[in-house]
Amino acid sequence: MGRYPLLEQINSPEDLRRLDLGDLPQVCFEIREYIIDTLSSIGGHFASNLGAVELTVALHYVLETPRDRLIWDVGHQIYPHKILTGRREKLRRVRRKDGISGFPKREESPYDLYNTGHAGTSISQLLGEAMARDQLGLKHHCACVIGDASIASGMAFEALNHGGHCRTDAIVILNDNDMSISQNVGALNQYLNRLMTSPLYNRWRRFWLTFTMWLPVLGPAIQLFHKRVGKSLRDLWTPGSLFADFGFRYIGPVDGHDVVELVRVLRKIVRMKGPILVHAYTQKGKGYTFAENEPIRYHSVSIFNRDQGMARSGGSEQVGFSEIVGETLLEIFQRNRRAVAVTPAMIEGSGLRSLADRYPTRVIDVGIAEQHSVAFSGALASGGLIPYLCIYSTFLVRGLDQMVQDVGLMNLPVRIVIDRAGCVGPDGETHQGLFDIGYLLAIPNIRIFAAANGTDLKAFLLLMESDESGPLAVRFPKGSVARSELERELPDVKSIRPWISGNGTDLAILCIGTMWENGLDLERKIRNESGLLSTVVGVRWIRPLDVKSLESILESCTNFIILEDSYEHASAAAFILNSIAPALRARHLKSFLFPTQVIPHGTREEIMAEFGMDNATIAEFLRTRLRARPFAIPGDA
Amino acid sequence: MGRYPLLEQINSPEDLRRLDLGDLPQVCFEIREYIIDTLSSIGGHFASNLGAVELTVALHYVLETPRDRLIWDVGHQIYPHKILTGRREKLRRVRRKDGISGFPKREESPYDLYNTGHAGTSISQLLGEAMARDQLGLKHHCACVIGDASIASGMAFEALNHGGHCRTDAIVILNDNDMSISQNVGALNQYLNRLMTSPLYNRWRRFWLTFTMWLPVLGPAIQLFHKRVGKSLRDLWTPGSLFADFGFRYIGPVDGHDVVELVRVLRKIVRMKGPILVHAYTQKGKGYTFAENEPIRYHSVSIFNRDQGMARSGGSEQVGFSEIVGETLLEIFQRNRRAVAVTPAMIEGSGLRSLADRYPTRVIDVGIAEQHSVAFSGALASGGLIPYLCIYSTFLVRGLDQMVQDVGLMNLPVRIVIDRAGCVGPDGETHQGLFDIGYLLAIPNIRIFAAANGTDLKAFLLLMESDESGPLAVRFPKGSVARSELERELPDVKSIRPWISGNGTDLAILCIGTMWENGLDLERKIRNESGLLSTVVGVRWIRPLDVKSLESILESCTNFIILEDSYEHASAAAFILNSIAPALRARHLKSFLFPTQVIPHGTREEIMAEFGMDNATIAEFLRTRLRARPFAIPGDA
Repeated sequence: MGRYPLLEQINSPEDLRRLDLGDLPQVCFEIREYIIDTLSSIGGHFASNLGAVELTVALHYVLETPRDRLIWDVGHQIYPHKILTGRREKLRRVRRKDGISGFPKREESPYDLYNTGHAGTSISQLLGEAMARDQLGLKHHCACVIGDASIASGMAFEALNHGGHCRTDAIVILNDNDMSISQNVGALNQYLNRLMTSPLYNRWRRFWLTFTMWLPVLGPAIQLFHKRVGKSLRDLWTPGSLFADFGFRYIGPVDGHDVVELVRVLRKIVRMKGPILVHAYTQKGKGYTFAENEPIRYHSVSIFNRDQGMARSGGSEQVGFSEIVGETLLEIFQRNRRAVAVTPAMIEGSGLRSLADRYPTRVIDVGIAEQHSVAFSGALASGGLIPYLCIYSTFLVRGLDQMVQDVGLMNLPVRIVIDRAGCVGPDGETHQGLFDIGYLLAIPNIRIFAAANGTDLKAFLLLMESDESGPLAVRFPKGSVARSELERELPDVKSIRPWISGNGTDLAILCIGTMWENGLDLERKIRNESGLLSTVVGVRWIRPLDVKSLESILESCTNFIILEDSYEHASAAAFILNSIAPALRARHLKSFLFPTQVIPHGTREEIMAEFGMDNATIAEFLRTRLRARPFAIPGDA
Repeated sequence: MGRYPLLEQINSPEDLRRLDLGDLPQVCFEIREYIIDTLSSIGGHFASNLGAVELTVALHYVLETPRDRLIWDVGHQIYPHKILTGRREKLRRVRRKDGISGFPKREESPYDLYNTGHAGTSISQLLGEAMARDQLGLKHHCACVIGDASIASGMAFEALNHGGHCRTDAIVILNDNDMSISQNVGALNQYLNRLMTSPLYNRWRRFWLTFTMWLPVLGPAIQLFHKRVGKSLRDLWTPGSLFADFGFRYIGPVDGHDVVELVRVLRKIVRMKGPILVHAYTQKGKGYTFAENEPIRYHSVSIFNRDQGMARSGGSEQVGFSEIVGETLLEIFQRNRRAVAVTPAMIEGSGLRSLADRYPTRVIDVGIAEQHSVAFSGALASGGLIPYLCIYSTFLVRGLDQMVQDVGLMNLPVRIVIDRAGCVGPDGETHQGLFDIGYLLAIPNIRIFAAANGTDLKAFLLLMESDESGPLAVRFPKGSVARSELERELPDVKSIRPWISGNGTDLAILCIGTMWENGLDLERKIRNESGLLSTVVGVRWIRPLDVKSLESILESCTNFIILEDSYEHASAAAFILNSIAPALRARHLKSFLFPTQVIPHGTREEIMAEFGMDNATIAEFLRTRLRARPFAIPGDA
């Protein structure tokens, strides 16, 4: 018999539902073991998945999925769900190219209803599903699982406000682990903590939970009582009055790791009417001691030894772009007390941990609140500070209207530091940072710089400190450089002139931001392979764009190509092509960037190769294309 | 002595603060009279301004503006503020070209801190101002005024959640008139109504209000008491516990039309610490009976007779694009029960009033919640319905991330009906609908149609009903057509072929959407004036774009221009130029569209003329430009 005797029999939720209630703790144990075994050998999202095991099992046990609709918020807690819905073996290739996604994905399974990745969407989707059901006269349950960090995002609140108003039958499971990826912030979170720790509540909790389970029977009597005593008095003995204020019946808190209790509670709840919020408390990393102790560090793991936990990274020779941001801001913070940093729940991801430890009031984590983070940064600038808004490219889209109205139109000097720009690799389609350049270019007053490397990024962050003339954005991908590289002299980033390497006239290779390195490689490759002589052009300032310099380079080259890490219709490339003289435009052979399609997961290298953006493919294209025009290749002449 | 004896002495808030408290009711009376007199002769935002008179006077009387910071949400209640801050006379040209803006505007006055227009930004800006003050070691008060509809928007909630957590001194004035532009919806609104109507609260209210005024003195004792009795018991006798749950001290409700009482309350409040929410109830349209009775109709007025109110519009010969949407959806709703409409608080503006009256459960107003509206519509589609998401172009930017993640990437068949696209006229800079085409083009799977006229719009709305293959967007500006025009045969909108008029070879005039009419006019004008023979091309399908047809037309024309109502870097024009063969690209003379600048208010015609998009300017450009290339003009040959 294998290591997972029960799990091996479960190839769908129907199999799970055939088991006895008493078997479920063992199922949960096996799922957890399977996740630890698998993830320790391949890496991936970890602690959130361990925290959601019992919830997942209980939900699939009680709901008749997929007829009943089960929606997951964000989705980085989806592995137990994938294991139970026929993808146990496939989990071994999660987040790998052509393997299954690390997030819910409709194309993978009828059990995955929505492709997710950004926080706070599930209540909107829950209400949409529920109202579609009502309108079509169908009968099935709709439920969603949302974390305590996600439920504090603006759009989740918008949906709660709507759900409490329209009163359709819908179940929100609040998976409260007091953590998002990072430590949680916000007043709502403090409220949830009070619900869990108040002595008054704790005394009432067990009684109340048992009591509410009888509500379908006692309902009318209790409603009458509610009316009589008024809402205020009800608050006295009803935990969760905040959710009641929003029109949701609050059930909880319940122990999110007691699968038998969860099943009992859910069985009662599916018989109730109207919008319901079930508050389950869970522990991120549950069942694996290392992760329980350091849930933030174990949010996403690389390969590790099961018995020893993740190795501490020693003094690495490499330094990530995010770290460069944290270190450079530290330099600035030390000398300039007007400098502050704003992050929407991404202190760790944005490299701000040590800065925040040192300057806790000047690194402002606003929670998963991108819209607020942008308008708030605008006001910090207007109020006389120097705000660095550190945000992932994919999440910036959430704050785009604020970037237009509350920053751009007023020309407020917000320093927009755009991390994870371009292709993001394993996180895949919902996290691609492929919009930022194009979207920002359409907004008045925002200047845009795509850093070419570590020193370029550092120099620009320093420039941002002293430039108060309007909003400035810098973008860079997930990546790293050798630490020694940072010791080089900083480049001049004030000048908008592009970098130029070589003076070949067969081809100009226009490289946006970090594609500079790719361009230099490409130049060597095609010179050696085909004798093609190129000029490599490092375009870092996108706006203002140095059109004159570009035109003068292009005039001296027979052809040109553009390398960029953006969607084609949100690209610097499109902007450049429409900015230069039409006659030069005709020398454009091709732009190597992402087509307007869903861009899947895999390593950055794999995905860029898949879309023909690797140097081997580009060199092959040039060989074929330019052979047809032999005048361009001296070697062929 | 004039009609406004006190008002005529007030040219700044300092003048106001020199008056006795007892004079303030008269000041309020005069402001109200001035607004009614002025607006009845020029039109503009009306009912909200009448509702905010006493709040504005009391705030400027108590706060030392502009040193103390006063921030207005949305801004369509800003006229009393403009009157008190030296712009009384200028109000007579509000919203006119080169006149003052109808919204707060930094460039106009040091009393206007932020240029606003979209709802829910003020609490973010309040916190930014307050934290900048703290960081810089300054001492002044920061306050914002936000309506009950705006405070329910996602970003306002994000800011409340942050404000309650960080506990800086900041004052939120909730101006609760139980109305946004339209009737208000949402659970929070129901909560606010309960606060105002519960008998228990009303009994306590006056006592509580008096009591909390003494809090700075009694503070420590009360805090101890709070701790002892626990939060639940506090809820029993404290109204507004929802805001207390968010960490705000709740003060209210107070009568927002009793200016003396407001001054007394505000004087106490400015001495309190931490985040405070003052709940003032007001009446939209206060003081003008017609507007009190029909606040929605009087939200924004045209010229009217003061004594008789606005004339009912009789059976107009004209029908607005929004009305066409409402009428066409009615046709569809009658035969197809799967069709629903979603609007973020714009039932009236989007022409859905009669539809909503007839199908109250199928016209879903989600409140000012654009993010939710988009993801919710995606789920309605996924759940099997046919959702028409009716949204203004400028507000769609708020839901853009959801358009990417929760609609586009999953290819969900949401019908996106984009009203007020292009230049919006008098609303001005914060409401311009100039981004939609470019932003949507960057998103996978979304097809985009720019309707050329009323029948084109109607035909496309009908096509949307049966096309379930993915998301479809249609955009159109504020405008109207003769009703008789709707009786013409509907055009074929399935074909992506552009419309073509004429066969001149000197010039192709590519017209995006409703620029079609301008193009036809232009063709006649330049034929008559310069003998230039053109082909007018009506591009309505932007994606898929009929590149082949376009290229074939352009091949037969010596030159071409593009007319479009978008920002240049968010335009169909840029997309077309990058889609056609580079050789044809060289025949492009110019695109007539909006540069990436702040586009001010004025009528659509005035603003388009200012940016050189009127046919007189275009004709002049062509005459000058093409005279230099005489070969192009047969008349000159």
